[in-house]
Amino acid sequence: MNGLIEKANVLIEALPYIRTFFGRTFVIKYGGNAMIDDELKKSVMLDLILLKYVGVDPVLVHGGGPAINEMMGKLGKKPTFVSGLRVTDEETMEIAEMVLAGKVNKEIVSLISKYGGKAVGLSGKDGNMIIARKKVVVGEDNQEIDLGHVGEVEKINPQVIRILSKEGFIPVISSIGVGYQGESYNINADSVAGELAIALEAAKLILLTDVEGIYEHPDDPKTLISALHIEQARKLVASGNISAGMIPKVEACIRAVENGVARTHIIDGRTKHSMLLEIFTDKGIGTMVVA
Amino acid sequence: MNGLIEKANVLIEALPYIRTFFGRTFVIKYGGNAMIDDELKKSVMLDLILLKYVGVDPVLVHGGGPAINEMMGKLGKKPTFVSGLRVTDEETMEIAEMVLAGKVNKEIVSLISKYGGKAVGLSGKDGNMIIARKKVVVGEDNQEIDLGHVGEVEKINPQVIRILSKEGFIPVISSIGVGYQGESYNINADSVAGELAIALEAAKLILLTDVEGIYEHPDDPKTLISALHIEQARKLVASGNISAGMIPKVEACIRAVENGVARTHIIDGRTKHSMLLEIFTDKGIGTMVVA
Amino acid sequence: MNGLIEKANVLIEALPYIRTFFGRTFVIKYGGNAMIDDELKKSVMLDLILLKYVGVDPVLVHGGGPAINEMMGKLGKKPTFVSGLRVTDEETMEIAEMVLAGKVNKEIVSLISKYGGKAVGLSGKDGNMIIARKKVVVGEDNQEIDLGHVGEVEKINPQVIRILSKEGFIPVISSIGVGYQGESYNINADSVAGELAIALEAAKLILLTDVEGIYEHPDDPKTLISALHIEQARKLVASGNISAGMIPKVEACIRAVENGVARTHIIDGRTKHSMLLEIFTDKGIGTMVVA
Amino acid sequence: MNGLIEKANVLIEALPYIRTFFGRTFVIKYGGNAMIDDELKKSVMLDLILLKYVGVDPVLVHGGGPAINEMMGKLGKKPTFVSGLRVTDEETMEIAEMVLAGKVNKEIVSLISKYGGKAVGLSGKDGNMIIARKKVVVGEDNQEIDLGHVGEVEKINPQVIRILSKEGFIPVISSIGVGYQGESYNINADSVAGELAIALEAAKLILLTDVEGIYEHPDDPKTLISALHIEQARKLVASGNISAGMIPKVEACIRAVENGVARTHIIDGRTKHSMLLEIFTDKGIGTMVVA
Amino acid sequence: MNGLIEKANVLIEALPYIRTFFGRTFVIKYGGNAMIDDELKKSVMLDLILLKYVGVDPVLVHGGGPAINEMMGKLGKKPTFVSGLRVTDEETMEIAEMVLAGKVNKEIVSLISKYGGKAVGLSGKDGNMIIARKKVVVGEDNQEIDLGHVGEVEKINPQVIRILSKEGFIPVISSIGVGYQGESYNINADSVAGELAIALEAAKLILLTDVEGIYEHPDDPKTLISALHIEQARKLVASGNISAGMIPKVEACIRAVENGVARTHIIDGRTKHSMLLEIFTDKGIGTMVVA
Amino acid sequence: MNGLIEKANVLIEALPYIRTFFGRTFVIKYGGNAMIDDELKKSVMLDLILLKYVGVDPVLVHGGGPAINEMMGKLGKKPTFVSGLRVTDEETMEIAEMVLAGKVNKEIVSLISKYGGKAVGLSGKDGNMIIARKKVVVGEDNQEIDLGHVGEVEKINPQVIRILSKEGFIPVISSIGVGYQGESYNINADSVAGELAIALEAAKLILLTDVEGIYEHPDDPKTLISALHIEQARKLVASGNISAGMIPKVEACIRAVENGVARTHIIDGRTKHSMLLEIFTDKGIGTMVVA
Repeated sequence: MNGLIEKANVLIEALPYIRTFFGRTFVIKYGGNAMIDDELKKSVMLDLILLKYVGVDPVLVHGGGPAINEMMGKLGKKPTFVSGLRVTDEETMEIAEMVLAGKVNKEIVSLISKYGGKAVGLSGKDGNMIIARKKVVVGEDNQEIDLGHVGEVEKINPQVIRILSKEGFIPVISSIGVGYQGESYNINADSVAGELAIALEAAKLILLTDVEGIYEHPDDPKTLISALHIEQARKLVASGNISAGMIPKVEACIRAVENGVARTHIIDGRTKHSMLLEIFTDKGIGTMVVA
Repeated sequence: MNGLIEKANVLIEALPYIRTFFGRTFVIKYGGNAMIDDELKKSVMLDLILLKYVGVDPVLVHGGGPAINEMMGKLGKKPTFVSGLRVTDEETMEIAEMVLAGKVNKEIVSLISKYGGKAVGLSGKDGNMIIARKKVVVGEDNQEIDLGHVGEVEKINPQVIRILSKEGFIPVISSIGVGYQGESYNINADSVAGELAIALEAAKLILLTDVEGIYEHPDDPKTLISALHIEQARKLVASGNISAGMIPKVEACIRAVENGVARTHIIDGRTKHSMLLEIFTDKGIGTMVVA
Repeated sequence: MNGLIEKANVLIEALPYIRTFFGRTFVIKYGGNAMIDDELKKSVMLDLILLKYVGVDPVLVHGGGPAINEMMGKLGKKPTFVSGLRVTDEETMEIAEMVLAGKVNKEIVSLISKYGGKAVGLSGKDGNMIIARKKVVVGEDNQEIDLGHVGEVEKINPQVIRILSKEGFIPVISSIGVGYQGESYNINADSVAGELAIALEAAKLILLTDVEGIYEHPDDPKTLISALHIEQARKLVASGNISAGMIPKVEACIRAVENGVARTHIIDGRTKHSMLLEIFTDKGIGTMVVA
Repeated sequence: MNGLIEKANVLIEALPYIRTFFGRTFVIKYGGNAMIDDELKKSVMLDLILLKYVGVDPVLVHGGGPAINEMMGKLGKKPTFVSGLRVTDEETMEIAEMVLAGKVNKEIVSLISKYGGKAVGLSGKDGNMIIARKKVVVGEDNQEIDLGHVGEVEKINPQVIRILSKEGFIPVISSIGVGYQGESYNINADSVAGELAIALEAAKLILLTDVEGIYEHPDDPKTLISALHIEQARKLVASGNISAGMIPKVEACIRAVENGVARTHIIDGRTKHSMLLEIFTDKGIGTMVVA
Repeated sequence: MNGLIEKANVLIEALPYIRTFFGRTFVIKYGGNAMIDDELKKSVMLDLILLKYVGVDPVLVHGGGPAINEMMGKLGKKPTFVSGLRVTDEETMEIAEMVLAGKVNKEIVSLISKYGGKAVGLSGKDGNMIIARKKVVVGEDNQEIDLGHVGEVEKINPQVIRILSKEGFIPVISSIGVGYQGESYNINADSVAGELAIALEAAKLILLTDVEGIYEHPDDPKTLISALHIEQARKLVASGNISAGMIPKVEACIRAVENGVARTHIIDGRTKHSMLLEIFTDKGIGTMVVA
Repeated sequence: MNGLIEKANVLIEALPYIRTFFGRTFVIKYGGNAMIDDELKKSVMLDLILLKYVGVDPVLVHGGGPAINEMMGKLGKKPTFVSGLRVTDEETMEIAEMVLAGKVNKEIVSLISKYGGKAVGLSGKDGNMIIARKKVVVGEDNQEIDLGHVGEVEKINPQVIRILSKEGFIPVISSIGVGYQGESYNINADSVAGELAIALEAAKLILLTDVEGIYEHPDDPKTLISALHIEQARKLVASGNISAGMIPKVEACIRAVENGVARTHIIDGRTKHSMLLEIFTDKGIGTMVVA
């Protein structure tokens, strides 16, 4: 019976958080190990479904670099990266879009359904949701580098997401954008998540990664930062004292915070139910970037 | 971190139950120690609020015998009971109504508010909600005994409850009925809860008591019955092998089950969060009466 | 037939008033003889129901001093007043709340129902409707006097009233407030009515009393004032030339007028159907306080 | 003051009727002196507006024989009647339609507006509301007589009326029907009113005439019948002991009663506010035809 | 098959216009030959119905001078005009109203119905839609000339039109206004159409006439002006180099454009489907007056 | 000008069809040349958008055999077919899903957007829309042949389509189904279109092919059948006198007709705007299968 009462206490501990976030939108960037390991996948899906039932409107954004690489490999193409950005020629774009919107996205939708939720998968083309432009990348020689279909968000049309969320579905979104001429763009998923959080006036932006959070010293796990003001976050990025993969995440958080998203979180997707822990327990986990 | 994951697992364990009961009504009879002990009171209120947030519409029904007795004492009146029913002359009725609708009811409303919920207190007179008739009680000599304002439910008009539930309030209801001439009736709260569960097409009727549930042998706690079919329940009542106070509870369950309430529960209000435990854990507690 | 035509003319005389007040809210403070005499009670209830049917949303506010005194007497407590305010210790507060919310309120609800209307009784605790604070009372020696649970309105949350009015019910409200800690407050009912009129953007505030209205000279019935501008009303209060019981009424009217309630009325509740006469006849009765 | 209380009593006497008819539709056939005398006109308009404000949805149907005759006279045409039906050649139809829909109808609309109501005038062509067919009239020689555009109701499309009533307007309807080829038909207005009452599931059909009601002996005003069962009404029509002009009225009532209209009334339009008197006083006036 | 493909191309050519005007209101002034010739009538009705089905809300305004003249003739009255305005004494007003609202209006309603649409005919009295005042006309001697019931628009209450349009009906409106005393006014239909276009925030005002459009030189058809800025339009009116009948049309266009109606058109009603051609083809026809 | 009038006539010819199909759903199977040729693609997209604007709710279903074959080729896999069905092992299924949902689907969505419409692409997994089971295929030796992930429709959940259609989007659906365990199924797109038409209570099912329709004698274009009753259609299938690729189309039509879809059409997607021609012209094209 004591065990049972412990359980009840956990539910009760969640109550103030449920109350706070009732009717609000959370944008979650899904990636890393949490997209590979079966147990973690299940844990993320259950977390999303629970959020939906307690009155939160979760919106899931995903990329899928490894799956794109794998398919490129099968097709005899070698992935190339410049400054961490995938060089995306026409053929690579086509592969990326197929893999993200046709494979990864639908697998997630199917998993959510399997665990009892209702989901609809979308790419940025659906409902003209993510309007994108070519990303201008400048090399060390100050010359523009042509990375092909690498894009950045120009404008978000959130209507489809709103409709589907309101009708009880969890929208699952591939980080593909569409240009004004109908051309496809490959966009960083952290950045897409951040822009969606802004457009949807989300209460939280949550980025799942494969580290515990942001470290003061990248190599020292004991220096995990719990809360980071955007001022400090900007300095950290400028300092170079931060891993390359973390930079777009921190930047997405900064932009979201600057544009009205009250709380942004970089959390460890390798921990089961890390989302729930962040949201519904008194302590929270990972690094929070706030104003 | 392990502790945290345990917590998350508890939330996840609740998910299938949340899904099942989303949008459904639960009628809860509140009484006994859970109405006296401050910790238990708090625990019941938090449970109700949590239920409301995860999409259930809880409706609370309460009596208040001890508080009525106390006020009668202060006013120099001595409570009298026949077959467990309070002899309710005009003056007693007035005291009962004042105590239930003016004191007990408003304290509960105030507590729910204090712990973060929104409640509205009602008696059966409000919105003509509980239409009652005089209860006919026959003594051992086959003569009718006049117990005054002791009533039973004639008809439920659930409109007010529906409106308030829909608008986010938890209705809190005193077990007072009103006759066609506007006269007040004192009605057993278990019975009121059962009739409301039927009228509201509730998914669950939950009766909080001061025992663990129904025992096969009233004096032997090891004989607690987990699930009881209404056939067996009827036999148990007929056998006399059941405590007097338990009879109206079991009868309320039987009537509710017969009229479409799928699950009815007699649970131990002395256990903190007993409601949550019954609803959201795989094991459940107390005695369930089902078809 | 002539008698019949007279009747029709009366209905027609009411038409322009019906048109003017269609869809508007009236807050009515009920008290005095109109709460004691059976014929007057019936007359008030019928007036309320008629108002509801012709498209007005009446909201009834009541106190109940005499009933509180009577119950205190039965319980061996002696009512004490300072500057017309009831000294309200914990026990008195409990009695007041029981009597108002549990007895007086439900009797009114039951009467409205008996005469064909639909009512719901509420106290300021329901839906956290009347948030109150302790009233600071300063004695002649400039020292603060502790009157216990005597309160004044801090804030009105009119949501419950709006919902119930819209669904066809007449809200009946006890002048009990609730503090931020859940504690009860005894508030002057005239003042509660005034604040509700402001919060509900009422078209009229009507205070039923046991005099014809405000007299220029309190002892001379021939000096009844038909219409009083708030400027004059303020002077009258300041002059001391006004009865003690009338002061909170006039002040409620002044505050209401200052906060957007176009018309406020102090009328004679001893006259049958005085409300209707004020509202639906060309002449009106009692004293009107206006900007 | 006594006079005032009398007035209030009249309003209160109306209350049970207001309650009964709240939200219901009344179809009123307007004609006779009530359409000619200015005071009577005003009285009818005020009655309609009052009905609208107390929650009834009045629908007014009018003919206009005298106005048609007058216009025909000006145009040098002589009205001819066969069995009380106007012989309606093409030209007469055009005149009738112009007079009814363009003059009489708009005058009524304008009057309602003048006295404070909102009205919209319609003919049976608007929204294809009154679909009509040619009325077959057989002479004494058993030969069909061609009366031209004299029609009878084939089908009612009440959509426009419902929309306008719901939005607060009083629909005013000319008794013009339209055939499947778009041709116009002149239909008896009593009959149109009856069919509209059926189609709108009206609570009452009220026919205003220039007599007090139906007499047992047409020439003896002392034999006015207060209530008539349709059985008796049929016999009365068959007996021939009834005036020619009264026959279509009685038949409209019989058909309406047979098709679900609970109460139908033939009342004296020469009495001011006769509608109100019928509806809102305990005694009622004229003759009621019921099942 | 080539013919078929041509047909499809025509539909497709219309698509961008359909998209642009979806959900917008068009006010169309109907008059001239298009109201006389049967083929043209049919063509206008079909155009209206098609507009309605492709998502436009057409509102038709009509006058009917020739029909009024004809009826005046039959009644032995001679039409008189001053500065192009009909001298409208009481009797003439009555005739005009009957003819417009009772004959012309209902014929149009009936035609729309015949060709498969749903229409409701209204005059400016219905729903108090067109509030008018007496038009002040000053003669050459600077003296006011009394033209009787000639009016101009004071205010538009578009509620009835909005309701009927929303419910799928095409409102058909006679150019009759109503004064504050309920008196009728005869108003120029071009002017009524312009004011309605402003009040309804119409996307287009279309005036059907019996000429191709506005000519630079009234006598030279080769000088048809396709698009006219309101500046030029004002000069053209001032120059006197424009026909008398065209002046109120141009003025209606100018006022509409000045008050937010983006496009106003004067087109040739003698051409079949001229409305469709103007709206749905790339070239357009007639003269467009724009800002 | 004559040319213009011709154009208007074409629009008017479409009117009765627009009226008939207003507010109805059409399910269109898109395939063949119309999915390859750029001009035909554009023509199909414009047709869909026009349908949407004139009040029809088009739902597009597509397969994509050639694109799947091409990707398989690139990946070094050889497509195999048994009885016209693609042998679909795990890897082929993954390729098919990627190509259909990630490439073909999003290209269509993007094209609709480019030509001015609003579209959302879905696979049968989204919203659990197309529940599928493994298709049992029996070989000539009466042995079951395992074709892997070849499926058939078990159940349609049309909620997502309904929501998106209502909100102004054109749903574009890949013929991928999902099993109760979340596994993917490759389903014939004609069959998916037919089942969707049934579930959506569509007014029309339109299958675009690369032939003119059904021929009485497959090799003789002069024997094109305009209308085919399902009886005859069944005989034609049984006769073997029909091309293999046409069989699933005819069967989809038969099943749709049997289940309430009034009209089903097999039309030539090689003709520009063939959909419009079928729908909006008096003659129609292709073969219609009806009850």
